[in-house]
Amino acid sequence: MPEVRLNQITGDWVIIARERAKRPEEFKHDREPRLVPAHSQTCPFCPGNEAMTPPETFRLTDSEGSWMVRSVPNKFSALTPEGVIVKKRDEFKECLSGVGLHEVIIESPLHNTTTALAPLARIEDILAAYRNRQIAFYKDERVEHVIIFKNHGEGAGTSLEHPHSQIVGTPVFPGQVMNRLSEAIRNYYYVNFGDCLYCTYMKAERDEGLRVICENDHFLAFVPYAALSPFHVWIYPKRHSACYGNITDDEIPALARILKEVLLRLYVGLGDPDFNYVIRSLSPGGADARYFHWYLAIVPRLTKAAGFELGTGMYINTSMPEESAAFLRDVSIGEL
Amino acid sequence: MPEVRLNQITGDWVIIARERAKRPEEFKHDREPRLVPAHSQTCPFCPGNEAMTPPETFRLTDSEGSWMVRSVPNKFSALTPEGVIVKKRDEFKECLSGVGLHEVIIESPLHNTTTALAPLARIEDILAAYRNRQIAFYKDERVEHVIIFKNHGEGAGTSLEHPHSQIVGTPVFPGQVMNRLSEAIRNYYYVNFGDCLYCTYMKAERDEGLRVICENDHFLAFVPYAALSPFHVWIYPKRHSACYGNITDDEIPALARILKEVLLRLYVGLGDPDFNYVIRSLSPGGADARYFHWYLAIVPRLTKAAGFELGTGMYINTSMPEESAAFLRDVSIGEL
Repeated sequence: MPEVRLNQITGDWVIIARERAKRPEEFKHDREPRLVPAHSQTCPFCPGNEAMTPPETFRLTDSEGSWMVRSVPNKFSALTPEGVIVKKRDEFKECLSGVGLHEVIIESPLHNTTTALAPLARIEDILAAYRNRQIAFYKDERVEHVIIFKNHGEGAGTSLEHPHSQIVGTPVFPGQVMNRLSEAIRNYYYVNFGDCLYCTYMKAERDEGLRVICENDHFLAFVPYAALSPFHVWIYPKRHSACYGNITDDEIPALARILKEVLLRLYVGLGDPDFNYVIRSLSPGGADARYFHWYLAIVPRLTKAAGFELGTGMYINTSMPEESAAFLRDVSIGEL
Repeated sequence: MPEVRLNQITGDWVIIARERAKRPEEFKHDREPRLVPAHSQTCPFCPGNEAMTPPETFRLTDSEGSWMVRSVPNKFSALTPEGVIVKKRDEFKECLSGVGLHEVIIESPLHNTTTALAPLARIEDILAAYRNRQIAFYKDERVEHVIIFKNHGEGAGTSLEHPHSQIVGTPVFPGQVMNRLSEAIRNYYYVNFGDCLYCTYMKAERDEGLRVICENDHFLAFVPYAALSPFHVWIYPKRHSACYGNITDDEIPALARILKEVLLRLYVGLGDPDFNYVIRSLSPGGADARYFHWYLAIVPRLTKAAGFELGTGMYINTSMPEESAAFLRDVSIGEL
């Protein structure tokens, strides 16, 4: 019989369609390996083409001074970085001017690499760049919320092959995030009597172990009990903190290692699936919030949301979270 | 400059990316016309193959007794129709047995038709079938919420070519719908002093007219002010009612006509785009609810949701709702 599981963190129900569930290996696609060059003359993100992007806002270099990670304003930004916010409220038409920040974090000088295959030091650079840019974005008083995300592969909505992430600072606080925050606050004060919902949940997932993929001193990676889609993975920091920007220099290498391990297990186990990942976080000003906990969510794009998901916000997951986790644990990846 | 618009009905902010916006005609794709037969020997939904589906739950026939619309349990149901609901709550693991109803509404004996091209009488049959099945589903005490939806085209998640819709009765009330209901209730009592948010909003859209596509005595079709994606369309009943199942025999032909007109304008104007539509509704028991209003939402699948949408629930719409509406109004469709 199928199961309808409650995701306590998001407040969403998920249908785990046991009968329709595929075996984990059925999600693997055998695509033709694509031959992608390490450098492209026309790619705005490749070394030598720096003039094709707007002026850089941040970079990290290797010992010889070559950039390893750089961030630049998005040339096709959804929001405009200039100007003041004008708010209008005219009966049913409420709007703000679309002022905000939108940068691209170019993850490597190599055109043809991917996080799963990158050296740990390079992933640490990416994560340090996220920290720097998140803190910088929140210093802009026009910014109410910052989201860090990566789209990997065409099916995940990316249009440029060169590995990159994005960071957007919006002039409004998203409704979805507000709903989760309300849920977290309600839980903190009225259900858990002062314990962070996320900390409690993480401990329970770790104790049960069935859905854990891997862990280290600072992070736990697992398929959530009410995973919304096949191989949905959450990486939680063990130290309670509401803001990603608060991550310490000790924690960055640990996050790089667990992120690489999970992405490599997905890469090998499922044949380089398209995926999105996002870092959910409050602002540094909210870093001490006892009720919220930042985390990184990875959603491989293996199934398609359709009318049911659109009309209910509920997902039908055609895989068993326990089986997905066991499958990922068993993938052979050798030394990181 | 882009605009960030608030959708008062859903509580979601939408970025209207003016600068990145395409002209409406740029969303038209010129696909090769596919030659699809009117009847397929192997299609479980074609006449003559009725034994390939589970036993029928409803049918409407023409004057000669041939079925025009029939509904059957979904052979690959996400939920199981048999059994009692067992609820488990074990620390962080809250779940119910996946009991629920899931039927397919086969919209026509023809394998190769689509609503945009179907005769009005056939669309009336489909809408009458929705009413019958929605009311029947809600009579099952295990069902807490019913969603009616259609996935048209591969990009919208359909796997079977024969025109059909689906109806699902879930044993839980979806979080997304609960959030909208809360918003509607709060507005009714605390913002609008006893006026339905939806009625007020519909009147304002109609008065302004900029985003209206068409209307008749009973329905208004428009691109919402804060449309989440290009050519997102809402069809609202003018008579306040919280439940679709309450639709009258007079209103069904009017809904058939406006639905056909909108889908035909999309079909001709954009080259038969993939789309989802959903009917959002409360139960017949909630039909008198003063604060909620049922409606039909059409979402053409012209863009791809990626990490930003996943992490914020906010959408970036690369079209101007006013331009989309004007474009649809201007499409030549002749007599319905």
